[in-house]
Amino acid sequence: MPVNLTSAVFALPVAGVALGIAEANIKRENRKDLLVMQLCEGARVAGVFTTNRFCAAPVMVAREHLASELPIRALVVNTGNANAGTGESGMEDARSTCAALAGLLGCQAEQVLPFSTGVIMEPLPVAKIAAGLPAAVADMREDNWLNAAQAIMTTDIVSKAVSKQIVIDGVTITLTGIAKGSGMIHPNMATMLGYIATDAAIAPSVLQDLVSAAANRSFNCITVDGDTSTNDALMLIATGKSALPEVSSTDSAAYCALLDALSEVAIYLAQAIVRDGEGATKFITVQVEGGKDAAECKQIGYAIARSPLVKTAFFASDPNLGRILAAIGYAGVADLDVTALKLYLDDVLVAENGGRAASYQESDGQRVMQQSDITIRVVLNRGESNAMLWTCDFSYDYVKINASYRS
Amino acid sequence: MPVNLTSAVFALPVAGVALGIAEANIKRENRKDLLVMQLCEGARVAGVFTTNRFCAAPVMVAREHLASELPIRALVVNTGNANAGTGESGMEDARSTCAALAGLLGCQAEQVLPFSTGVIMEPLPVAKIAAGLPAAVADMREDNWLNAAQAIMTTDIVSKAVSKQIVIDGVTITLTGIAKGSGMIHPNMATMLGYIATDAAIAPSVLQDLVSAAANRSFNCITVDGDTSTNDALMLIATGKSALPEVSSTDSAAYCALLDALSEVAIYLAQAIVRDGEGATKFITVQVEGGKDAAECKQIGYAIARSPLVKTAFFASDPNLGRILAAIGYAGVADLDVTALKLYLDDVLVAENGGRAASYQESDGQRVMQQSDITIRVVLNRGESNAMLWTCDFSYDYVKINASYRS
Repeated sequence: MPVNLTSAVFALPVAGVALGIAEANIKRENRKDLLVMQLCEGARVAGVFTTNRFCAAPVMVAREHLASELPIRALVVNTGNANAGTGESGMEDARSTCAALAGLLGCQAEQVLPFSTGVIMEPLPVAKIAAGLPAAVADMREDNWLNAAQAIMTTDIVSKAVSKQIVIDGVTITLTGIAKGSGMIHPNMATMLGYIATDAAIAPSVLQDLVSAAANRSFNCITVDGDTSTNDALMLIATGKSALPEVSSTDSAAYCALLDALSEVAIYLAQAIVRDGEGATKFITVQVEGGKDAAECKQIGYAIARSPLVKTAFFASDPNLGRILAAIGYAGVADLDVTALKLYLDDVLVAENGGRAASYQESDGQRVMQQSDITIRVVLNRGESNAMLWTCDFSYDYVKINASYRS
Repeated sequence: MPVNLTSAVFALPVAGVALGIAEANIKRENRKDLLVMQLCEGARVAGVFTTNRFCAAPVMVAREHLASELPIRALVVNTGNANAGTGESGMEDARSTCAALAGLLGCQAEQVLPFSTGVIMEPLPVAKIAAGLPAAVADMREDNWLNAAQAIMTTDIVSKAVSKQIVIDGVTITLTGIAKGSGMIHPNMATMLGYIATDAAIAPSVLQDLVSAAANRSFNCITVDGDTSTNDALMLIATGKSALPEVSSTDSAAYCALLDALSEVAIYLAQAIVRDGEGATKFITVQVEGGKDAAECKQIGYAIARSPLVKTAFFASDPNLGRILAAIGYAGVADLDVTALKLYLDDVLVAENGGRAASYQESDGQRVMQQSDITIRVVLNRGESNAMLWTCDFSYDYVKINASYRS
C-alpha cells in the first residue's frame, strides 16, 4: 500500500482548462483510460520530457507541436499503451490521434499534444482511441481534475492530485496538478506524466523556465527503480484567466512566488509517485550535505537510493547500514575521504571516522528502521553544496508487480 | 537454485600451495568460515581489488603488504564479517589477524594477506579467528581446494572451483581457482573473492598484467545487483614449481597461452557467481556489438543488465522486451540513433528501425524467454567495438535473501 498517501479527494478547477475522460478499452475493458484537456484561447503550455534516446512517438510529436507557431489548444492522454519503440508507424499513430481530437474540437492537429503511457513496443490502438474521444469531449468540464487523475493511472494504486492558491498583488492565483507513475521512475524523468495548470498569465520563455526549475526540484529528484521511461513528460499550462498582469520576467517577485508555489505542487506530486512506488512500504528521503558541488551530492544520493541491497534492507526494517556506506563508496566520487563523512539515520549518528560511530546503538537504528518515513543523511564535510532526493524500499511486491505487468 | 551449475566436484592441486580450513564460529556455529593458504618459497602474488572508496580494512592491509618488499607467504580468509566500514580499529583487527597467522607459520605479519567477507560495519571478532587458526594450519594440504571453495561461501548455494591444464613448451602447467560471491556483485568488482593459483613461474610485473587482463575479461563483466562491494579481491598466485622457465615478458607465446588459460578459469568462476546469483533463475548474456568503442558497448550492456524492470521480466519469462529498448535509450549514449540498431533475443530479431521487427512473433520471444540461458544481443551498427557481460534475473528470492541476510 502507498506509504502515508491516500487517493486525492480534492482539486480546485483552474479557469480555462476543461477536462474530460472516457473508457476507450485500450488494454482492458471498463477502465478509464483516456483523458482530454481543452485549453482556453490565450493559454500557453511548456514542458520537460524524458531524456531517453528511445523516447516515445508521442513525446516526439508533442515536442514538434510545441515548437510550431500555433497555440496549443488541447492535450490527449491514453494509458494502456506507451506508443514507444514503435518506429515510424508509432509517429503516424500519435499524429492521427491528434488529428482525431482536433477534428472534434475544431482546431488543427498541430494544436494538440499527445501523451501515452503503458506497455512499450506494441502498436497503439488508434481506432479505439478515436472511438473513445467523443465521449471524453462530451465529458469536458473545469471541475473534473479528480477524474482526470484517475484516468491517467497505470500501476498506480492511488490517484494523485493537489491544488494550491497564492495571492500575488492582491490577486488569487490557483495551481492544480495531477500526476501518474509508480514504476520505471528515475530522472530525467520517470514513467511519469504530470500536468499542472495555473490561471496566471505567463510569458512563453518564463513558462519554460518555470517548468524546468520546478522539475529539477521535484520530479528530477526521485527514483523508484533507476529505470528512465521512454514517455515522461511534465507539462505546465498557464491560462491567463486571472486578473494578474502577465509575468514576463524571471526577476520579478511574482515569478518567485509562482516558482515557490509551483515547486510545492510539483514536489507533492513527485513524492506521491514515490509513496505509491511499486511495492513500496517505506518512503525514504536521502539528504547529502557538505559536498563540493550539487552534482557529487546527487551522485552519492542516487548510489544510495538505487542500491537494491540498501532498498531490501529498508524493506526488512533491518539496520544493515553498512550497505549505505558501501553505496557511498562506489558512487564514483574518486577523491572522497570516507573518514571525514558522517552518516545519520534520522537523528541517529550511525557512522563517522570511516566506521560505526562509538555512540551508535543497534536499538537506535532499529527504532528508526521501523518507521514508514525515514531520512538518510550523509554529511560529506568537504564543501557547501547539498542535494535531496526521495526513494522507496524494494519489496517482494515490486518483483511481483513487474513480473506480471503485461498479463 | 543456481542456473545450470552444481557444486564443484573436482579441483587439481597446484604444487606450492597448501590450503587448510576451520570452523571459527565467526557468525554462526558449525560452519567452515576460515581458510588459510600457505605459499611455497619463491611464490609470487598479484591481485586486483575493489574500487569502492569505502574499501574494507583487509583490502587496505593486503595492498600495503603486497607493496612491501617482503615475499607473501600466506593468505587468510574469513567469512561472516567483512571488516568494512570499521575505521581504524578495523585496520588493527586486519593486522592482528595477519600477525596471528604469521606467528603460527614462522613468518612476518607483512607476509600475510588478509581477506574478509560478510556483514559490513561490525567489528571483526579477531579472538575467534585467532582461536580458529591453529586448526586451519593443521588442516593444510595441497589437495584441499574443494574444502577451501566451501569455506569461503557466504550466501552462495554452491561452491565454485575449476582447474585447467595446458602444455607450454612440453611442460604441463596447472591452474586452479576458487571463488565466492552471489550478491553485491558489480564491477569493479563484486562481493567476490577469487583465488587462482598456477605452478608456472611468472615475473612480478607480468603477473600483475595477467591478473588485470583476466579480471577485465571476466569478473569485470558481471553484475547481479549493481552494488560494488567493499571487499572484492581477485588474487593470482604463481608458485614457480613447474619446470617451465619464468615467464618474464608479455610478448611471449607462453604469456599468451597463460592468459588464455587464466581467462578461461576466471570466466568460468565469474559466470558461476552469476549462475549462483542471489535468487537467480536465468543466466543472461548481454552482447553489444558494433559500437564506436568498448566503453559505450559496456555502458549499454550494463544499462540492460542492471535494469530491475528487464530483470523482473526475465524472471517472469515475459517477453516484455520494450523494457530492453528503454534501457538502451537511457544508457547515456547521447548521439545514439535508435533507428539504426537491432535487438535480438538469441536468434530472434525483436526490434529494428526504432520499433518491433515486422518478422517478430510473440511466440518466438516467448520460446526463448522460457530458457534458463538466454542471450540478449544488441547490434548498434555504428562501429567495430563489442562488449559482452553476464547477469541474472531478479526474483522474489533476491528480495527475500537480502531482506533477511543478517538474521
